[in-house]
Amino acid sequence: MGTQHAKRLKALLAELAGRKLDCLVVTHPASWYYLTGFTGESGALVISANGTTLLTDGRFTVQAGEETRGVRIELVQGGLFPAMGVFLRKKGYGRVGYDANQLTVNQWNTLRKALESKARGIDATGLVERLRMRKDAQELAVMRKAAILAGEVLEGVLKLIQPGVRESELAAEIEYQMKKRGASGASFETIVASGERGALPHARPTAKKLRKNELVVLDLGAILGHYCSDMTRTVHVGRASKRVREWYQSVQEAQEAAVNAVQAGVTCGEVDAAAREVLKKNGLEQYFVHSTGHGLGLEVHEEPRVARGQTVRLEAGNVITIEPGVYVQGVGGIRIEDDVVVEAGRNEVLTRVKRDLIEL
Amino acid sequence: MGTQHAKRLKALLAELAGRKLDCLVVTHPASWYYLTGFTGESGALVISANGTTLLTDGRFTVQAGEETRGVRIELVQGGLFPAMGVFLRKKGYGRVGYDANQLTVNQWNTLRKALESKARGIDATGLVERLRMRKDAQELAVMRKAAILAGEVLEGVLKLIQPGVRESELAAEIEYQMKKRGASGASFETIVASGERGALPHARPTAKKLRKNELVVLDLGAILGHYCSDMTRTVHVGRASKRVREWYQSVQEAQEAAVNAVQAGVTCGEVDAAAREVLKKNGLEQYFVHSTGHGLGLEVHEEPRVARGQTVRLEAGNVITIEPGVYVQGVGGIRIEDDVVVEAGRNEVLTRVKRDLIEL
Repeated sequence: MGTQHAKRLKALLAELAGRKLDCLVVTHPASWYYLTGFTGESGALVISANGTTLLTDGRFTVQAGEETRGVRIELVQGGLFPAMGVFLRKKGYGRVGYDANQLTVNQWNTLRKALESKARGIDATGLVERLRMRKDAQELAVMRKAAILAGEVLEGVLKLIQPGVRESELAAEIEYQMKKRGASGASFETIVASGERGALPHARPTAKKLRKNELVVLDLGAILGHYCSDMTRTVHVGRASKRVREWYQSVQEAQEAAVNAVQAGVTCGEVDAAAREVLKKNGLEQYFVHSTGHGLGLEVHEEPRVARGQTVRLEAGNVITIEPGVYVQGVGGIRIEDDVVVEAGRNEVLTRVKRDLIEL
Repeated sequence: MGTQHAKRLKALLAELAGRKLDCLVVTHPASWYYLTGFTGESGALVISANGTTLLTDGRFTVQAGEETRGVRIELVQGGLFPAMGVFLRKKGYGRVGYDANQLTVNQWNTLRKALESKARGIDATGLVERLRMRKDAQELAVMRKAAILAGEVLEGVLKLIQPGVRESELAAEIEYQMKKRGASGASFETIVASGERGALPHARPTAKKLRKNELVVLDLGAILGHYCSDMTRTVHVGRASKRVREWYQSVQEAQEAAVNAVQAGVTCGEVDAAAREVLKKNGLEQYFVHSTGHGLGLEVHEEPRVARGQTVRLEAGNVITIEPGVYVQGVGGIRIEDDVVVEAGRNEVLTRVKRDLIEL
């Protein structure tokens, strides 16, 4: 992705110039990977019109040299932020951009002290994250594969869903199958929430065994080529009751309404409302206790937030999840989630698994 | 662990009283789990002599009620930090402690604004983390099991190590076996680094196939009952050369020297030096590019850091890793890592796998 990185750095430098920043400090691993390809877990990028420098420690210097092109590697000994202060002072940068969502108060205080009032820190929150929102064709190709992989894994484990199987066994099998198919791992701890446990939207899998006549929420995602997928299907062990079918149908309608609302120019709040209105119409709004979705990419939660009242407008190249659900205490949960690419006047659903209720 | 939580909160309140803090804001998931048992991913605790309140959103309120005892649950709508500001103002707290390692600059600014100069934020960095360093008997019992589990998984996969197997296949098998044995997951992305790739201390597993006459570094850890283990063994595919054996023996001696140095009252720097001196004696010091170890517990990297010059003294109940290594570009890496509990005048090694070179 060498040319990709050069293009991204160029776009970022235009942002720096517009803000009269002498440099930008990038301390977030997903963002430094996006800009340089470095996959190490510790370090910081300093980006300026004079070039890009990666400060990192002895565990990562060889790896950094192998993974990046045209990036200077600086070996840090001792603390990262004091070393960064020395480096920035040496370079004589006056206006130093940083991301106030990524630096802790202590990191910022250490850096500020190390700058010795020779330089000013300028809040440049979200500069790289905003670039990352607009996925290019190469990123979308990887995300398509990551979404398909998750779907195949889900379809593959359906045959294991039966009374007596433990939630934790299913989760282990799901994550194993992801890796067997080439994923580097799960985007997040796989959720297998059966029966009443499904009423907890973020339940962790337990040793609980699946029982007949229960709903089972399966929420999983794979990391493939560094990009995340994220999908949910809800299955019913045995034949569902009329009430459960009605709930399921409402969630399915809500999910499809929100997916259909996705296109460039629409606000995130409008997409959220599309799902919420269907559930309201069916008297289920109070059971939908979270937002409709979130951005997806190198991280499983990225910008934009697809939530009530959000005025951010979707742009072509954004990838978001659409995942309304209902959660009824004492009964269970139903959620359906797909990954969706925003395009002009349309969208592409990356998740290729049908959404109808599966009764096993 | 109800009584455990009460004991921990009591110890924390004594710290607050000593600092004349009206309350402490805890935003770090591992720390709120430690204090209350809440396993949700989003929220914040406010702890004061008047009781403990958990602020969280609709995804987690039911779960929070089920998982905690004696904790008030406040449903947050909208942003967490504005809501926290409103809550703290309503309570009339004047001196609000926070952890400057855990709050981002933006979170802190949002909170400060929401407090409307009615309250002062007081830096109380590391209060909970320092409590977490001293594991009690119940925690140590869990960590012992987590370490044994990782060891059993490692011993179980040795039979799969042979020319032609991919690093990624071994890593997938390791993480699957952890889960099969009851782990909720891996403490970190399992490292399987063969041949030259082993010279990268934190190499991610790739599709590279193992070859005859290569070193393979296996670094893995399991999360069991919320606590992490972390261990490394290095094996050789085929019979090792004299040079590789000498290197291995140096690392093994260094590791044993550092383990033997571990006891209450010793500084972390002294433990690090014990490993480093052996490698220096054997002319390998320049190949040991990281520190000797780190604290371990609810997180895979905790306090204390076992690194050069660290003056922090080990205390009974600390759990640390001891993991020196040598990394030779173009050849490979050798690392041996155990988890060690600090005791008065002695220590307990939790990792129960022999350290001798394994030739397969």
